[in-house]
Amino acid sequence: MKIIREEKTTLTASAEFCVRFSEVDAMNIVWHGNYALYFEDAREVFGDKYNIGFHDIVNAGYAAPLVELSINYKQPLLYGQTAKVDVFYKNTEAAKVILEYEIRNIENNALIATGRTVQVFIDKQNQLVLTNPEFYLEWKRKNGINNKRCSL
Amino acid sequence: MKIIREEKTTLTASAEFCVRFSEVDAMNIVWHGNYALYFEDAREVFGDKYNIGFHDIVNAGYAAPLVELSINYKQPLLYGQTAKVDVFYKNTEAAKVILEYEIRNIENNALIATGRTVQVFIDKQNQLVLTNPEFYLEWKRKNGINNKRCSL
Amino acid sequence: MKIIREEKTTLTASAEFCVRFSEVDAMNIVWHGNYALYFEDAREVFGDKYNIGFHDIVNAGYAAPLVELSINYKQPLLYGQTAKVDVFYKNTEAAKVILEYEIRNIENNALIATGRTVQVFIDKQNQLVLTNPEFYLEWKRKNGINNKRCSL
Amino acid sequence: MKIIREEKTTLTASAEFCVRFSEVDAMNIVWHGNYALYFEDAREVFGDKYNIGFHDIVNAGYAAPLVELSINYKQPLLYGQTAKVDVFYKNTEAAKVILEYEIRNIENNALIATGRTVQVFIDKQNQLVLTNPEFYLEWKRKNGINNKRCSL
Repeated sequence: MKIIREEKTTLTASAEFCVRFSEVDAMNIVWHGNYALYFEDAREVFGDKYNIGFHDIVNAGYAAPLVELSINYKQPLLYGQTAKVDVFYKNTEAAKVILEYEIRNIENNALIATGRTVQVFIDKQNQLVLTNPEFYLEWKRKNGINNKRCSL
Repeated sequence: MKIIREEKTTLTASAEFCVRFSEVDAMNIVWHGNYALYFEDAREVFGDKYNIGFHDIVNAGYAAPLVELSINYKQPLLYGQTAKVDVFYKNTEAAKVILEYEIRNIENNALIATGRTVQVFIDKQNQLVLTNPEFYLEWKRKNGINNKRCSL
Repeated sequence: MKIIREEKTTLTASAEFCVRFSEVDAMNIVWHGNYALYFEDAREVFGDKYNIGFHDIVNAGYAAPLVELSINYKQPLLYGQTAKVDVFYKNTEAAKVILEYEIRNIENNALIATGRTVQVFIDKQNQLVLTNPEFYLEWKRKNGINNKRCSL
Repeated sequence: MKIIREEKTTLTASAEFCVRFSEVDAMNIVWHGNYALYFEDAREVFGDKYNIGFHDIVNAGYAAPLVELSINYKQPLLYGQTAKVDVFYKNTEAAKVILEYEIRNIENNALIATGRTVQVFIDKQNQLVLTNPEFYLEWKRKNGINNKRCSL
């Protein structure tokens, strides 16, 4: 059995948003599927901040489609409320980008939802890349992230 | 002043749909922006039926972006209701695709909304095409549509 | 024939936005239906600024559903571009809220799209209100808007 | 430690769909967040088929908001492709509705994605209901689902 370690890092970013009327459903709360939008907003801020955004990855010759998305809903968000999404980079030795998310109500800091996305790399022939692309290893090094199996 | 004639044709198509929960807003009615989805559903059925769909146009070397969208809302649509969109091709001598739409409640035939879209043609260099592309004139001929300025 | 005058006012508001990845379609441009989102963003800023927002109207005992939406697309918007929507209140003697919109690319001020929405008032029994609600006339007065048929 | 059993049942439903143009992103594949729409379509068919839909639950005095959503993406879905979502009810003794999903390409039966949603019950005061509502236990009995802690 191969054990893939994941570990917390200090790479983090944050995006604020105000709930749009169109995002609310007939129960007057944000429709659950729209949380994927908020996560994406935070992922984009993260990508811009650390030069690992959509265009950075494309320029390196890859794309990074999502293969997993999970969301845990703690409290509803209402129309007009403002909230923020914090995104945390979680290191893994696998050829993946793992991000974790926390959405909080800005006024009272209440936890609204948590989530997680996993992205893999595909090359220009749309083939899954099983080993870490060099640009991604380089990116990790620049950001002080250890990619060795064992830190001893 | 140049007068561009538009005339009704017999080219028409129809799409049925059931209102999704995610399409409804906090007033329990379909959020107004979602009507663009329903029009698009009908436009796709029309395109498939008459071989003038997204891929047909791309294969001919063009794209046909929307330049105008207008919607008139007559009655609200509620979650769970079923409706149909009828789309009508309106001929014009201009290098445009003009479609008109009617959404009706299937149960009582009540008129829910009307609308109109105008598409133009751009070529592979993203340049607007001011004269009718040959493939489009040919498509009109095949479908018995007169493209002459004057029918005398 | 009844002539309904509309006139420009100085009531205006503005909202900036960054194009989300999820808002872009397969042609790499913002999907046309999403402009309704941008207009709504601006309408909300307008509503907050002038105390004529969704909740203000509900608190006065009414709702203000859209009955018309029209959009003219001038230039495409791409993923990652930032733009702003300016919204302008257009006065009319009819019992309607008429707003006009302009979307511009923030970097070069290029006009991306224009649009217009018309809202009517319905009361708590969901009946259309044909004469201006008192709260709306009062709102006009407070904002220096003349509602007389003739200004002589 | 409390162990909550989950078990497969024979309650299942299915919904077919055709990928809308507006659902596709700049990579020409369905934007990942839109899978929540497809799951919801299947959940609605399930609710209609077994009388446990949105309105059934509201009529019983409850709502059933999602508290968990997870999606695993196996293969991309392209514009114009047709697919189906199968939804499976998974029994649990907890006061939850657990559904699992499989999306398959209709033409070649390829597995596109799997997923899972968990819903809880809240009452009319928006309070979480920790024990199974009587209407839900009755629904389980009618559908031949055992809700006993131990089947001995």
